[in-house]
Amino acid sequence: MRATYMYGAGDVRVIDVPDPVIQQPTDALVRVVRSCICGSDLHPYHNLPATPEGKSMGHEFVGVVEDVGGEVTTVRAGDFVIAPFAWSDGTCDFCREGLQTSCRHGGFWNANGVYGGQAEAVRVPLADGTLVKVPVGEDSALVPSLLTLSDVYGTGYHAAFKGGVSAGTSVTVIGDGAVGLMAVLSARQLGAERIILMGRHKVRTDLGLEFGATDVVAERGEEGIAKVRELTGGDGTHVVLEAVGHMPAYEQAIGVVRAGGVISRVGVPQYLDAPVGFPSLFGPNITLTGGPAPARAYIEPLLPGVLEGKVDPGKVFDRTIDLTDVPDGYRAMDDRKALKVLVRS
Amino acid sequence: MRATYMYGAGDVRVIDVPDPVIQQPTDALVRVVRSCICGSDLHPYHNLPATPEGKSMGHEFVGVVEDVGGEVTTVRAGDFVIAPFAWSDGTCDFCREGLQTSCRHGGFWNANGVYGGQAEAVRVPLADGTLVKVPVGEDSALVPSLLTLSDVYGTGYHAAFKGGVSAGTSVTVIGDGAVGLMAVLSARQLGAERIILMGRHKVRTDLGLEFGATDVVAERGEEGIAKVRELTGGDGTHVVLEAVGHMPAYEQAIGVVRAGGVISRVGVPQYLDAPVGFPSLFGPNITLTGGPAPARAYIEPLLPGVLEGKVDPGKVFDRTIDLTDVPDGYRAMDDRKALKVLVRS
Repeated sequence: MRATYMYGAGDVRVIDVPDPVIQQPTDALVRVVRSCICGSDLHPYHNLPATPEGKSMGHEFVGVVEDVGGEVTTVRAGDFVIAPFAWSDGTCDFCREGLQTSCRHGGFWNANGVYGGQAEAVRVPLADGTLVKVPVGEDSALVPSLLTLSDVYGTGYHAAFKGGVSAGTSVTVIGDGAVGLMAVLSARQLGAERIILMGRHKVRTDLGLEFGATDVVAERGEEGIAKVRELTGGDGTHVVLEAVGHMPAYEQAIGVVRAGGVISRVGVPQYLDAPVGFPSLFGPNITLTGGPAPARAYIEPLLPGVLEGKVDPGKVFDRTIDLTDVPDGYRAMDDRKALKVLVRS
Repeated sequence: MRATYMYGAGDVRVIDVPDPVIQQPTDALVRVVRSCICGSDLHPYHNLPATPEGKSMGHEFVGVVEDVGGEVTTVRAGDFVIAPFAWSDGTCDFCREGLQTSCRHGGFWNANGVYGGQAEAVRVPLADGTLVKVPVGEDSALVPSLLTLSDVYGTGYHAAFKGGVSAGTSVTVIGDGAVGLMAVLSARQLGAERIILMGRHKVRTDLGLEFGATDVVAERGEEGIAKVRELTGGDGTHVVLEAVGHMPAYEQAIGVVRAGGVISRVGVPQYLDAPVGFPSLFGPNITLTGGPAPARAYIEPLLPGVLEGKVDPGKVFDRTIDLTDVPDGYRAMDDRKALKVLVRS
C-alpha cells in the first residue's frame, strides 16, 4: 500500500510499504477513508533530522474496519470508525478518568511499530479502547466534520474544557489555525458570550466569527495585549485558550488574562521554560493548564452535535487532495496557502 | 506607640512612632492584641537593601477596635477582630468572586501609607471589607488559632482549595513550615485520605502527622521524589501543595505529581521562570495554580471549626514573645529554632 514518510525537514514522500496485518488479538485493520495534515506535522517539516529510513506520518484518520483480531468486540468489518490521535485500552484508571493520552498500555501513532494515518490502511492497536464506531457511510457529507474529532475539534474542546469555560466566561483565543478556530467553536458551545479571537488571517478569522467569535484582534504582542485590555475594560478575559505553542503566544496569554483567570494551552510548547513567577502567574493567581487532548474522551460527547448538524467543524478543511499529493499539501500548509488539508486515501 | 521596622537585611528594630489616627471615614483604628512573624518576613530579612527610613513590618494581627470612621458600619469600638493580610473593599467584582488580593481599591500592609501589624496599633483602611468581628474576648484561649486566619491557615487552605482537593484525592505537601502544616490540615478538612508530607524537621512533621498527614518523607530532591513515587505505586499524587517557594521545591512538585494532576503553589516564588514545557507540565496534562491567598475569603468558612474547637491551627506557634523582643523572634525563626513566633503587643 502507499503511505506517507518524512525523510528530513521538508522531505515528504508517498512510498510503497507492505500492507499492515493483524498482529495482536486486540488489533483492528482499518482502511483509511480520509486523513489530514496537522499543524503539528509542520514542526518535523521544519526541523526533522534527515534519516535514510524516514518516519511514517499522520495521526488523524477515519476509515472502514477491514478485519479485527479475535478479542475485539466493539467494532467489526464494515464499520465506519473514528481513530483519535492516541490509542488507548479504555479500561485503565487514566482512561476511565478521561486522560487517554496517559493510558497505561496505550501510545501514539508513528512510534513503536504502529504506523501513521496518512496512508491507505492502518493497524490499530487496542481497537476496543481506541476506535469509535459511527453510524454513517464512508460517502457521508459528515465525514470531514467527523474527522475533526480525531484531533483538532477535541483539542480545541480540551482547551475550553480545561479552561473552565462556562456561561458568562469571557475568553480570548490566541491563534487562528484549525485548533484555535475549534477552540472558538468549543468555547461557544460551553456558553461563553464574549470570545476574542487573536489572529491576522482574515479568511481564518472570518471563519472564527462564524464559529462564534465576537471580536477579532489582528494586532500581536504588546499592541495586541493593549487591544484586548481595551475591549475588556482593562481587565483581560477570564480564560485564555493558547493554540499556538510559541513563546510570544505564551507571553500574549499572560498579557490578556484577567486576575484569577486561567491560561489553557493546547499548542504544543516549542519552549521548555517560561515566566511563572510573582509578576506573571503567581501574583494575580493565574492558573496554567492544558496539554495533549485526550481526544478519545471527547468523541462521544461531541458526536451528537456533528451528527445532528448543529456544528460544522469540517469547515476548517479548505483544500482536499489525494494521498499521492500529500507533499503538496504539506507545502500549502507551510506556505499558509491552506488552513487545513483533507487527504483522500 | 512602638512598631517594628526593618532597616536592611538582618536589621530589625522596635522603635517609637506616632500613634495612628483615623484618616478616612472608612478607616478603623485597631489596638493589636497578637501579631506574628511570617516565613515570608524572612525574605527581606535575608535581602532587604539598607535604608535610613526602614520599612514597617507585619501583616498578620488580631486586635480590638478602638475607633472607627463615620462610614464604618460592621465593626465598632470594643469588637475583637481578625485582619487578613490584604485589605479590601469587600464590594468590587474581585472581592465578590473571593479574590480579595486583587481588590480594585485594596492593598497590602506596609505600603502606600498603611503600616504593619508587628506594632501596638494599626490604621485599617476599608474596615467594613477588611475586618471580621469574632465573638470572643481578647484573653480567649482561641486567640492563637484565630490569628492563623490572618494568613497561614487561609494560605494553606487556598493551596488545597485551588488544588481541588476532595475525598479520594491523594496529596503531597512540600514544606513543613507553618503554611505547609496548614496545607496538611486543610487537605484533611477537604477530605483527602492520603497526605504525604515532605519535610525533615521531626518536631514539625510530627505536628503534621497530628494535623492529618499519613506519611512523612524526609528525603529531598531525586531521592524524595523516588520515595513519594514508591509510596504511590509509581504514579505520584493527584495534587501537590507547594509551600516553600524555591526552585528545588518546584522541581520536586513536578517530580511527584500524577499525570493529569495539579500543582498548587502558595510559597512565594523566589524565581521568575521555570519548566512548563512538554516534559514537565504539558505532556502529562499537569495544571499549575495558586498565588497569594485571599485570606479574607476563607475567614468565614474556616471560623466555625476554630470556634467549635474542631481544629487547633494555633499549634503552629511554638514561641511567644513581647513586641520588644521581635528582633529575637526573627532570629529564632531564621535559625529554625522556632516554627512560628507569636507576638504579644
